[in-house]
Amino acid sequence: MTTTTQRSERRADALSKERIVAAAIQILDSGGEKALTFRALAARLATGAGAIYWHVADKNELLAAATDDIIARAMAEAADSEQPRETIRAAALTVFDVIDAHPWVGAQLAEEPWQPAVLRILEGFGGPLTALGVPEKAQFDCATALLNYVSGLAAQYAAAARLQGRETSRTALLANVAARWTALDPAEYPFVHRVAARLADHDDREQFLAGIDLILTGIEAVR
Amino acid sequence: MTTTTQRSERRADALSKERIVAAAIQILDSGGEKALTFRALAARLATGAGAIYWHVADKNELLAAATDDIIARAMAEAADSEQPRETIRAAALTVFDVIDAHPWVGAQLAEEPWQPAVLRILEGFGGPLTALGVPEKAQFDCATALLNYVSGLAAQYAAAARLQGRETSRTALLANVAARWTALDPAEYPFVHRVAARLADHDDREQFLAGIDLILTGIEAVR
Repeated sequence: MTTTTQRSERRADALSKERIVAAAIQILDSGGEKALTFRALAARLATGAGAIYWHVADKNELLAAATDDIIARAMAEAADSEQPRETIRAAALTVFDVIDAHPWVGAQLAEEPWQPAVLRILEGFGGPLTALGVPEKAQFDCATALLNYVSGLAAQYAAAARLQGRETSRTALLANVAARWTALDPAEYPFVHRVAARLADHDDREQFLAGIDLILTGIEAVR
Repeated sequence: MTTTTQRSERRADALSKERIVAAAIQILDSGGEKALTFRALAARLATGAGAIYWHVADKNELLAAATDDIIARAMAEAADSEQPRETIRAAALTVFDVIDAHPWVGAQLAEEPWQPAVLRILEGFGGPLTALGVPEKAQFDCATALLNYVSGLAAQYAAAARLQGRETSRTALLANVAARWTALDPAEYPFVHRVAARLADHDDREQFLAGIDLILTGIEAVR
């Protein structure tokens, strides 16, 4: 019994969960979620699928671990400002940039809103609220408002990533969407019709940040 | 040629897309997205799958049509106030109540963010902005901030609906999540640890509306 345990632990050390997660991230970045199989992972790590299962129970756990790894490193590198508002903005922009660079992270955050990576983001939004002067009883609502907004972005990017498989690029996708908006009846959809022209050439990152600033302005008014 | 067309049109009139969509909504409400097959639909409508395909190309189109039908009726019934802020709040609460009553609508809105139903919501948020005094150049960002926030809610409800299959009720699900939050290291997650107690007994609708109010306060500051 002892011998078996020691052998398993030695094998585990040689492989390590960190190496598995790093390899999974490479596969996800190059081929997306569909490319991530235990078989592909075993081939990349030059090991057997059984050795990987020793560290990771299933694909869901692997996706959550890969997402957490990416978010944890990005949040740790996010600029920590003396201004709590700037700290929250930096955390939000960090999440935007991660989702933009790794579309599968967006899908993961949207699909599993209570996974560890989401808690890191919630902590990044909630942590500075006391310094921002938000009363304790309002902090939960303020942090979840920011988180909800970020989840909406994540869902939109995940959907765009799925559609881009069919429609080549994000620019082409948005141009298609803008054309559909323009074709709507202006009497029924006056606003959408009017902003259609702005859809194709708007900057996603700037628009995302504009929304974060609206929420932060609202939060500062709570003080 | 003419005869065939007339025959097809007669068959189409007897069935009608409205009847198909209404039957699809009944199936979706009772059994969720998985229960919606052309076979189940044909059985409910006492017709053949071929007759349905005459009106609806595939399941995606059917889901989008069902979602648009529900959202269109709900938005039309939403209280139109003389106060533009109240009109936007009413639209947001309407979407919340629809998602709460029909979890599959949340999944649809999150997964297909450029479908007709989403444009109705965007119009509901963007339409009152001029009356609210928001300059035209800021309106696109303001309306999409609200929409993004609602998409985040939709994604969260869709995820909760998937998990509830495994974890019985929303209350049980949130109690489980709260227990995981409480088990986190308070040194690493001070904020999440602190708000864990509020997760299990918070009111989703009130918290959703609190976030809408934060964004609206931010929007009013843009004037």
